[in-house]
Parts: sequence; structure tokens; C-alpha cells
Amino acid sequence: MNVRKAFKIVGTGAYLPLNKVASKTLENKYNIPAGWSEKNSGVVERFHAEHISGGEMGADAVENALQNANLELKDIDLLISTSATFDYPLPNQAVSIKAAIKGSEAYDFPVLSVNSTCTGFISGLEIAANLLDGQQYRTIVIVSAEISSKGINPDNWETISLFGDAAVAAVITYDPSGKSGLIKAAARTYSEGAHQAIIKGGGNAYPIKDHAYDKVLHSFNMSGFSLLKLAKKYIPQFMESFFSELPIGILNADYILPHQASKTGLAVFKNLFPFKEGQVLENLSKNGNCISASIPLLLHESLVSGNIKNGNSCLLCGTSAGFSIAGALIKI
Amino acid sequence: MNVRKAFKIVGTGAYLPLNKVASKTLENKYNIPAGWSEKNSGVVERFHAEHISGGEMGADAVENALQNANLELKDIDLLISTSATFDYPLPNQAVSIKAAIKGSEAYDFPVLSVNSTCTGFISGLEIAANLLDGQQYRTIVIVSAEISSKGINPDNWETISLFGDAAVAAVITYDPSGKSGLIKAAARTYSEGAHQAIIKGGGNAYPIKDHAYDKVLHSFNMSGFSLLKLAKKYIPQFMESFFSELPIGILNADYILPHQASKTGLAVFKNLFPFKEGQVLENLSKNGNCISASIPLLLHESLVSGNIKNGNSCLLCGTSAGFSIAGALIKI
Repeated sequence: MNVRKAFKIVGTGAYLPLNKVASKTLENKYNIPAGWSEKNSGVVERFHAEHISGGEMGADAVENALQNANLELKDIDLLISTSATFDYPLPNQAVSIKAAIKGSEAYDFPVLSVNSTCTGFISGLEIAANLLDGQQYRTIVIVSAEISSKGINPDNWETISLFGDAAVAAVITYDPSGKSGLIKAAARTYSEGAHQAIIKGGGNAYPIKDHAYDKVLHSFNMSGFSLLKLAKKYIPQFMESFFSELPIGILNADYILPHQASKTGLAVFKNLFPFKEGQVLENLSKNGNCISASIPLLLHESLVSGNIKNGNSCLLCGTSAGFSIAGALIKI
Repeated sequence: MNVRKAFKIVGTGAYLPLNKVASKTLENKYNIPAGWSEKNSGVVERFHAEHISGGEMGADAVENALQNANLELKDIDLLISTSATFDYPLPNQAVSIKAAIKGSEAYDFPVLSVNSTCTGFISGLEIAANLLDGQQYRTIVIVSAEISSKGINPDNWETISLFGDAAVAAVITYDPSGKSGLIKAAARTYSEGAHQAIIKGGGNAYPIKDHAYDKVLHSFNMSGFSLLKLAKKYIPQFMESFFSELPIGILNADYILPHQASKTGLAVFKNLFPFKEGQVLENLSKNGNCISASIPLLLHESLVSGNIKNGNSCLLCGTSAGFSIAGALIKI
């Protein structure tokens, strides 16, 4: 299988907040029936950021990834934030992540924010793979840092039990050997589901000036049932089209790293294809849905554990607000 | 001069809100001394969006650009929003723009948001130029839709007199002839100025839940003097480095399309280099600073008027929150 855009993932790193929150704790705190979270969202524990910003979490993940790659700040040619959540409405989150990296003031590498919510890392990877040219761009850092816990309505059991906070970074370098890199990336956006996953308040549609805090208006809302219907309707045709021009099918990918959307979302996805045992990676139960950080967290964990090895083909894929489906087939 | 990434701008389009606001009107409304705006911000009139969202403005600009390009929705392979302002904190703004395009539900082209605040269009253009391959990506639409008027503190004369609302789109297609396209794009981020242009409240640093509306906290603030100092310090070395590997210097570019940051910002920029009369394009006085829409608005106006013609070299450049400087030298 030909690598279309050659690169090598030379290091990944993660930051998980210190505050690990068990579902039991959440259930006690918010009067949710005992066992509801694990049964319905599939999440046993997740991390909640306290006394640390998304920018700082992202910076920590970048520092960790650089260490693992044996590289330094001076080696970075571009930093791409693929976070959906942000410290400030302006500047863009990549600015806050770079500024929080120790010693970053001495380096003027550029930063950029890319946002396609839950599949942001896939978008960032596609962009980075296309920019890497061995000249202007030799080393690009992609970082997803997400604090979802501050934008959740505690009365909404479905979301408060589901989401977690995390930051993950990947350092990728130009490697013309063609042994590793991007085989294909693609996405589709189905506008009939444009606003089925939404935080309505806080932007220009419902400005804070005119709309005081309201836990429904200013929290994440999803029409879970409608989103599952869209996933069932469109994922099969998306994957058929994605693999139609490739010499392998989805079942031949060594590993599938799906966005950890929800317990039901993962179950729906796994029911669409007769995957092999262990082929589809999961971390939902111990991390929750970490928005754009879920997919790279799976990648980071599997690279560190040695589960994913050089030469493996990995399909990173998922659904995101839009309603979008995205996939990137990469060779490690 | 070699085009590194070939593309052709086949159409541009703009949407300016119906509500044109003269500086006199603003001055009367907010007790600003008569003439202050024109003298200090350089803005005579600007447009303020009313009863229209950023998504709708962006959609209108896209429809207009498609018409001018003689293309249809079915021809779009990717839509990139480069807007810094947003209708909703989630989903990303590209989703809202696509959903507002008439008939867009019938098309599943993917969307993506890229944000580097005021220089977003330059980032989007660099990404699009690198993605266009004549196969998966033949036609990409880049759109900047900005509503700044809802996030301004009326007591802050510097900002309320400066900003305007606008949406601009450009349709670019793969054109391997090499007659037009990207000659070079580059950016630098200087973290010492990370938070000198900021909206502090409304993200995870100051969540709406814990911080009720406050016109200072939830409005755009800039340290104008510090930003000008950074611009003076870094623009000369940025441009020297940018042109060091090119056969021409900045003075040889047919046109310079700078971000319309402010009257003083433009004056500082023009004082750094002995530009020719008419070489540096401006629209600040009639549109204000339209964040990421300013640079493409200059491009759109100049293409429509015939001022910029096929074969012209144009340097799109500007400073943005970060503190970043970005430039893209393109051949039309």
C-alpha cells in the first residue's frame, strides 16, 4: 500500500489531569442513580482539570512528546492545535498552548489552530502530512488539549457521565523513505446534522451580553439518538467510498482507532463491520470522551505500550459535530 | 519566480451587512468626541451585522464567490472557514457556514475551521494550496466571516471605532499550469505578545458559569502600544527572512495587501519600507478592521475592480493575536 504523504511519528506525549473522578463520585454528587454512568455512558472514570488551563495541559503534552521524540523546541517548524475547547474566545488556542510551553518565548515557530471538533486530530494530521516538505516544514507538532468538564450541565446525565479532560501531542517529521505516513485521509460533512451537537450560548448567536448564564444554553447538548441514526446511515457508505480506491478493506487495517464518542456509538460502529477481536481500540471506560484528544490518546497509549508497532496500518476515524465523518489511514 | 503550489483563484465573493455605520453615528451614540474615530482609528464607516449570523454572512459570501467562479456546490471538494469569530462555541464555524448555504444539505463536501485570528485567510490559503492535488481536492472554498461588533466594549473608543463586520470567500482550483499560485507562505509566532490582543472571558479560563457578563472581561482588549512595538521589532526581520530565498524583494511585489489592523499599524508598516504609491492596498477607512476578512476583502475588491490582474504578484501579510506575523506571496 503506497504512502501518499510520507512522515514518521517520532514521539507522542499526554497530560492527564491529576483529578481522577470515579463514576461513583459523580453519581453521588449529582444524584444520579448508582451504576447509571457505567451502564449508560460506559465510563468508569475520567479526569477533570482543576487549577490547570487547556493551554497548560497542551503545553505539558507537547513537552512530553518532544522528550519522547528526543527533540527540542528549536526543532519545531509548526505547532498545530486541534483542540475544540479554548481558554479564551480570542486568541486561538494554539497561541495559549505555545505560550505555556516552558522557554517558548525564545522560539518564534508559528502556530495555527484547526478545529473540526472530535475529529480535529485527523484534520491536523492530514494538514501536517501535506505541509511536511523536508525544507520549510521538517517537524510539526500536533496537539489536542480538551477541557470539556467546565461546559457540562450537571442535570444532563448523558453528557456529565460521558466526557473527560485530556491533552495529547504527536511530533511528526518528514521521512521521505515512504516506510510510514499517510495513506489516505478524507472527511464528509452532512449538514442535516449541523446542530445536533452544540453549545448554543457564548458566541455571536447568543452573546453573553444579552444572555446571562443558563446551564442549558451554555452547556454542551447532543441529540444522541439523532446522531446515532446519522452514524448508522452514513458510516457504511463513507467507509465504502474511503476504501474503494485502496487495495485493502477496513477489516484489513491492523488497528482501528475510533473516536470514543459514547458506549452506544462505539457499539453501533463495531456492529457495522465484523472486526477481529482486539482490532478496535478503546479507552472510553477509563478516560471518557475527550473530544479531539480521544483518538490521539489511543494512539499514544498503543505506541507506548508497544501494541502498535512500526509497519502497522492504523485507521483513525470518527464522527464529529457537523455532522461529519473523518478517517485517516496511516502506516506507522 | 517559481510557483511552488499551483492554484488559480477562479472567483471571490463578499457579503457586507446592510447596516453601514458612520463614525459620526458611533460618536454620537457613545459620547465620543466628534472626529475622534477618523483621526485616531482612521475609520470613516464600517458595517455592523444585524439580524444575520456569521454563518449566514459566510454562506452568502460563498454563494457569491461560486457565482463569480461559474461553479456550483457540487464542485466543492472542501470548505475551509478561516473566521476567528463564531456563532456557537461548538460546533466549529465552518459547520454553521456550510449549513447556511442554500441547498447545502444535498452535498456532503467536508468542512474545516482554521483559526489564526487576523491572518486566518493566509493560513487557509497555504493549507488549501498544499491540499489541492487535482484528484481528491480540485476546488476548495476559503471563507472568512467575521462579526466583531458584538464583542466590543463601547467604553473602549480604540476598539469600538476600529472594527467592522464582513464576510469574504475565495474559490481556488487546482491549476497545474504553474502560471498562478503560491510562491511562498510563512508565519512566525512571538509568544512574548501572546495575550496582548484578547477576549478574556467566555472560554475555560473565565467560564461564563463563574463570571457574569462584564463589558471589559467579555470584550476584545488590545494593548495597542505594545503590539505596535512588537510589529516594529519583528516585521523587518520577518520580511528579510521571507524574501531571502526569493529572487525578488518586498518592494518588487506588484501589490501588498496588508491586514487592516489600525491606522497607526498601517502607518508603521508603510514606514518600514519605501513602497511605491498605490502598491499598498487599503480599505480601512470604509470597512474598519474586519479581522480575518480584511485581507480577502482587499483581494476581492481589487480583482473585481480589475486593479489586480492575472500575472500580478501579491503579498498578503499581517499581524495577528499570538503575537504572529504571516505572509503569503501569490501570483494571480
